[in-house]
Amino acid sequence: MGAKSEKWMLMVTARTPTNIAVIKYWGKRDEKLILPINDSISVTLDPNHLCTTTTVSVSPSFVEDRMWLNGKEISLQGGRFQSCLREIRARANDVEDKKKGIKIKKEDWQKLHLHIASYNNFPTAAGLASSAAGLACLVFSLAKLMNLKEDNSQLSAIARQGSGSACRSLYGGFVKWIMGKEENGSDSLAVQLADEKHWDDLVIIIAVVCARQKETSSTSGMRDTVETSALIQHRAKEVVPKRIIEMENAIQNHDFPSFARLACTDSNQFHAVCLDTHPPIFYMNDTSHRIISCVEKWNRAEGTPQVAYTFDAGPNAVMIARNRKTAALLLQRLLYNFPPQPGTDLDSYVIGDKSILEDAGVKHMKGVEALAPPPETKDNIVGEKSKGDVSYFICTRPGGGPVVLSDETHALLDPITGLPN
Amino acid sequence: MGAKSEKWMLMVTARTPTNIAVIKYWGKRDEKLILPINDSISVTLDPNHLCTTTTVSVSPSFVEDRMWLNGKEISLQGGRFQSCLREIRARANDVEDKKKGIKIKKEDWQKLHLHIASYNNFPTAAGLASSAAGLACLVFSLAKLMNLKEDNSQLSAIARQGSGSACRSLYGGFVKWIMGKEENGSDSLAVQLADEKHWDDLVIIIAVVCARQKETSSTSGMRDTVETSALIQHRAKEVVPKRIIEMENAIQNHDFPSFARLACTDSNQFHAVCLDTHPPIFYMNDTSHRIISCVEKWNRAEGTPQVAYTFDAGPNAVMIARNRKTAALLLQRLLYNFPPQPGTDLDSYVIGDKSILEDAGVKHMKGVEALAPPPETKDNIVGEKSKGDVSYFICTRPGGGPVVLSDETHALLDPITGLPN
Repeated sequence: MGAKSEKWMLMVTARTPTNIAVIKYWGKRDEKLILPINDSISVTLDPNHLCTTTTVSVSPSFVEDRMWLNGKEISLQGGRFQSCLREIRARANDVEDKKKGIKIKKEDWQKLHLHIASYNNFPTAAGLASSAAGLACLVFSLAKLMNLKEDNSQLSAIARQGSGSACRSLYGGFVKWIMGKEENGSDSLAVQLADEKHWDDLVIIIAVVCARQKETSSTSGMRDTVETSALIQHRAKEVVPKRIIEMENAIQNHDFPSFARLACTDSNQFHAVCLDTHPPIFYMNDTSHRIISCVEKWNRAEGTPQVAYTFDAGPNAVMIARNRKTAALLLQRLLYNFPPQPGTDLDSYVIGDKSILEDAGVKHMKGVEALAPPPETKDNIVGEKSKGDVSYFICTRPGGGPVVLSDETHALLDPITGLPN
Repeated sequence: MGAKSEKWMLMVTARTPTNIAVIKYWGKRDEKLILPINDSISVTLDPNHLCTTTTVSVSPSFVEDRMWLNGKEISLQGGRFQSCLREIRARANDVEDKKKGIKIKKEDWQKLHLHIASYNNFPTAAGLASSAAGLACLVFSLAKLMNLKEDNSQLSAIARQGSGSACRSLYGGFVKWIMGKEENGSDSLAVQLADEKHWDDLVIIIAVVCARQKETSSTSGMRDTVETSALIQHRAKEVVPKRIIEMENAIQNHDFPSFARLACTDSNQFHAVCLDTHPPIFYMNDTSHRIISCVEKWNRAEGTPQVAYTFDAGPNAVMIARNRKTAALLLQRLLYNFPPQPGTDLDSYVIGDKSILEDAGVKHMKGVEALAPPPETKDNIVGEKSKGDVSYFICTRPGGGPVVLSDETHALLDPITGLPN
């Protein structure tokens, strides 16, 4: 153990992105190991706008494993946390910090306790895959702390056991979760298809939609779908494998029309099998439907897709625009159709990359009110504009994978007490 | 021709019910002949509450075929009307009315013109299968006028060419539309599985739901689904055939739990393939979803289904309660969760068979406000009650098939002028 009695503490802080699936994961073949019934593909979101930061620390003075999420202590007793902690401890190695005079032997990790603090730079409850980023960040930061030799793909198989889609947050850019064949799940892991610079035209706008009803958790939802849907196996076995190949090609070739078609149809099919579940699961609401109609109408009017949309297990829309110019036009349309409630500040209604808002030429709330109806709606009866159906928009883009934050000012735990700052 | 120069007129008035599918028809294999990709099964609704009345008349003084719907003249030029008229004229026979001294020869029908007036005893725009009842009534009444020898099943194959689901309105009770195999459609027709007395415990409550957006027509909707859904063929070939057999058994054996499970899952699967269409089709809205949640929660709490629900190409819910007692409890729940807008008269908010309202113990609007929350919602966070999401409720039951109304006071055309009354 360390030279300076029992007072030493070692800390690592890391940042991990969220991701949004464009070919969806829905349904497990093994509930415990979290093995999916089909491959999935995701886009990693820029961690500047959506990420989890986690500090993990170890000290002989800690009497038990403890964790804080957004400053509030949470239980680590859940099977999923325990799986990740067990798998990581089993792979821990000797660690030496010469500057601090600390030496931890491989076998010591089984006895040493951990303090973990995690923080999302976006609302946890907004249904933006916070558990994916969170579990990925936990696994990544612990792997650094315990000096694991495994690469990110091997780490992804550990994160997968915490939260399925977490495995796709171990890489930036475009990521495939290979379902694997092994019963023990060793080959069910994430690989990077292309990094975030490969297709850097893309701009992402997220509409955080107000929900009236509590949603079905994705864990119980996908279990119900596998048990009761008459369509899910056909989707997993016949439909998705072809789409995976097509989506990989679309990404490789920067083929936006194919990318958009596949992303939209696969999102809709995921929600279709939710509806085919007994009892049926509804994640999208009327606002989600209106966002889809708005995008579909525009894509149709342009003759070729300008924007792809995808919805996870909630009503929020993630829209991927083919480039900055398109993103600005999209934001105009969204603000026109989904204005905020009176008294809302534009600065808090459109967050993230504000330069898209500048490109859209909207400088203040009066600018939103002055927006002209988009040309494609002119001939049609325009759907009612109802204020406040969207909570806010986040402008972002594809982004990079996990990183260690070596600057200690980012740490979420106090280096003396080991408690949240 | 008739003895009394050119002034004679012959008239038939008939009444035909609407029907609601419990195993859904969605998708054609032949657009022109209207041949479906799977069998379907429906329940005929009591014509006292929902029906079309049609008067057809013939006179040598008529110079062209004309039709009025709810008092307003409409075009008969559509291919579907023309198909029906052509098919019926081809099967016309000699007609003699000795009392009036009229004799029409078989071959005369090709030259004689028709006046047709049709009236729905429910709002046409409410999305309650008005075209099904309308086309069925047109075919049935013309068949009587022209003395066709075909039985109702053979007539259903003609009505089918006007509007697919119209073929199921040629019978009361429980009806199966057999998809058939012939290319010319001759074996794609309706048969009665059981008449309306076979299972007369059932009570039906329809929620006419307010819609904010214009809906996709079912004709173009099902064409898009067949062209773009990756799930529809699996549904038609693998899922529906089994459900048809199970539903026939459930009806034969008065097996309400199976009936409810099949009706609900098949309605949801129909909406699932709509969502799997590109661009996606949404017929249900948030109010529809809340009605489903309300019924599912209750069914679950009771341990066995009390109520089945089914939704056609629109947001309206058709709920089938296992008996009168259940229907009264259902109506209480519906009025509790979906109260009318202030100032609405209870008498116009619950129409049809008012005795269900009496059984529910609700006598006036104050009684609606005084309803206690259903026991199954007590532990849960109750969804927001928002007034006016439902336009009105119709209480009805399974009903009989088409009938000729011999009492001339029911005629919709003036016996002298041949114009609408």
